[in-house]
Amino acid sequence: MNIQTLKGFRDFLGVEARKRQYMMQTLKRVFESYGFEPLETPALEYEEILIGKYGEEGDKLMYRFEDNGQRRVALRYDQTVPTARFVAQYANSLPMPFKRYQMQPVWRAENTQKGRYREFMQCDADIVGLNSPLADAEIIALLATGYKALGFENITVTINDRVIFEGLPVGAITSIDKLKKIGEDGVCDELVEKGVSVSKSEAYNLLQSVTNQKPTERLNEIMKQLKQLGINNVTFSPTLARGLDYYTGVIFEVESPDYPTGSLGGGGRYDKLIGMFAEKDIPAVGFAIGFDRTLEAMEAINLFPPELNNASTKVLVTIFNRELEEKSVELSVRLRSNNIPVEFWLGGDSKMEKQLKYADQKGIPYVVILGPEEVEKNVVTLKNLASREQKQVSFEELVTQLQQ
Amino acid sequence: MNIQTLKGFRDFLGVEARKRQYMMQTLKRVFESYGFEPLETPALEYEEILIGKYGEEGDKLMYRFEDNGQRRVALRYDQTVPTARFVAQYANSLPMPFKRYQMQPVWRAENTQKGRYREFMQCDADIVGLNSPLADAEIIALLATGYKALGFENITVTINDRVIFEGLPVGAITSIDKLKKIGEDGVCDELVEKGVSVSKSEAYNLLQSVTNQKPTERLNEIMKQLKQLGINNVTFSPTLARGLDYYTGVIFEVESPDYPTGSLGGGGRYDKLIGMFAEKDIPAVGFAIGFDRTLEAMEAINLFPPELNNASTKVLVTIFNRELEEKSVELSVRLRSNNIPVEFWLGGDSKMEKQLKYADQKGIPYVVILGPEEVEKNVVTLKNLASREQKQVSFEELVTQLQQ
Repeated sequence: MNIQTLKGFRDFLGVEARKRQYMMQTLKRVFESYGFEPLETPALEYEEILIGKYGEEGDKLMYRFEDNGQRRVALRYDQTVPTARFVAQYANSLPMPFKRYQMQPVWRAENTQKGRYREFMQCDADIVGLNSPLADAEIIALLATGYKALGFENITVTINDRVIFEGLPVGAITSIDKLKKIGEDGVCDELVEKGVSVSKSEAYNLLQSVTNQKPTERLNEIMKQLKQLGINNVTFSPTLARGLDYYTGVIFEVESPDYPTGSLGGGGRYDKLIGMFAEKDIPAVGFAIGFDRTLEAMEAINLFPPELNNASTKVLVTIFNRELEEKSVELSVRLRSNNIPVEFWLGGDSKMEKQLKYADQKGIPYVVILGPEEVEKNVVTLKNLASREQKQVSFEELVTQLQQ
Repeated sequence: MNIQTLKGFRDFLGVEARKRQYMMQTLKRVFESYGFEPLETPALEYEEILIGKYGEEGDKLMYRFEDNGQRRVALRYDQTVPTARFVAQYANSLPMPFKRYQMQPVWRAENTQKGRYREFMQCDADIVGLNSPLADAEIIALLATGYKALGFENITVTINDRVIFEGLPVGAITSIDKLKKIGEDGVCDELVEKGVSVSKSEAYNLLQSVTNQKPTERLNEIMKQLKQLGINNVTFSPTLARGLDYYTGVIFEVESPDYPTGSLGGGGRYDKLIGMFAEKDIPAVGFAIGFDRTLEAMEAINLFPPELNNASTKVLVTIFNRELEEKSVELSVRLRSNNIPVEFWLGGDSKMEKQLKYADQKGIPYVVILGPEEVEKNVVTLKNLASREQKQVSFEELVTQLQQ
């Protein structure tokens, strides 16, 4: 029997789980302070809700099956289609604009590779029901502010408008999007290969005509509003395309110069998607944060508060022997009533060595020993596991020390 | 097409999502302060990991299917079997005792009825790797402390030891467990029906012999330790059985006299389960909080902080007209820099009525109006949506008012 997780699926314990929690809590706080409401949708939906919404590839990678009641069902593949379903289902009672964020796992049967998983967290925010430059500016400001709250100081925003690509031959956009990665020459080769341009010089002309584009009036307005909202480092890039077909207006990405491996998150305006179940167009603009990539970046540039790496408790109160167990429990209760997060040893008669090893393994910084000598002198021995120093202290000194 | 959620599956928006978050955050804080580490396991596991672990009923209610790689997989049905898999998989690197909590949705294709869902949150904490009375006491203390942190002031704990039932005929335990619900007479009828007792008087004698049981020595020790840990209201009940077959020692339940509709959570010792994949017995004691039931109780007895019912923002800054949009955005930025959670209207030219309705629908308590008159006088109009009062105030007065 395979005693293991499925490929592309992960367990998270302790510090790994706490880091993810920390990211989500930080972003929630920002999103809610801007009036975005939390939304949670089910892991399973009717298959017909999800199918055909993500292209052929999506239908292939989707986890779908027949449930016990012979219903065709599918696992959440993203958070946008369920939101569209939600908007159609509750159309009459939702305040418009509808501002929501959503942070839930999604499932895709991708080929697994470094940094790509079959179960991963998605983290989106969207403004539904409005097509105004100010809504575009607010969603970009929210994304940048979220990254600032996570500790990214030098986040940069690249911005473009899909309108710029209007009239371009099919296939050109995805090639142009690679400009940064493969250079002008690479893009032009691709354009010729794909048959978008008949010759390399025609391809150069095509690329040139795109790179010479000026920001649209709308982009200028958005950039002005972003400045007002305190978001600087916004750059217009006429070759930014972002892969997804469904964008209809502004598109944007954020990067950190401190972790220059590509975009950490991004999004855009998509006015034809959210209305898919409501049988009318419902404008929307939103972003997704690349959760795993952002976590990687935060690890690399040291943005997690160091206390997340520690155990959640400050001290292990050991048990000297069964006779003195009560004394140790009593001490623990007194420490807890002083708001100190405490573990006490639960194992009855155990060698002190075993108890110290446990504290060490869990990363608990202090250990308290309460033996017959300590009881007689009305003190405890406090041991710092990092420095291996130990000293006898009174209860009051102990509290002071541990509250530091 | 069915534009709706599957039966037994739920969407959560805004205040509903926030209440669930609040419960989880509150419990997490308590669990971590006792040294329990967060664990998250995947939604999908190999089917062979889960199958056969929950009885015939469990296999029937489990969501399982073949994935795109022809692997048989199953959705998380509880958190105990995945934890057993985790313990076997990482046996060599886990500090023992292994103290973990887990709060994730599980999926069961139950018949839906009031308060029973097909996707629901489970919330467990367990101590793995120890069989000591002190571990039993700690887990019960943790459960009671969790409920206290949620605001339940008069929580009661009922406690028993499965050892008391040793030698009882099969089938007797589940009947005796119903004593509170169906009374002595009902239990005895059932015992006769099932053929456990040949006559009603024999059934009475059997029941009598159980109700006359005294607490085991171990229970007495646990109750003494609970007292020391500050947990009062602990009652021994020799007829408490709890349904699950797998308990091997202490069992317990918590109830609130303020919401007397049965147990809100409970658990017990189960020394034969966690080792299922490790091919040896690994003792464990733990509890599960009935998440939906507890949420219901908290609603009923008003334990959620009232601010959860409000919008997450304090004020909507309206936009008088396109010309004054910039003024309103500027004001919003200044309020945000004073740490006031603010929304501003995003919709460009909209009637004031529409903007006020939006604030009302979302439960935003205040609205700010910034028209030509206000701009000229360097004030804003602040409107309280509940009382419908409005007055002109300076920026400083506005901040003071909103920070209250």
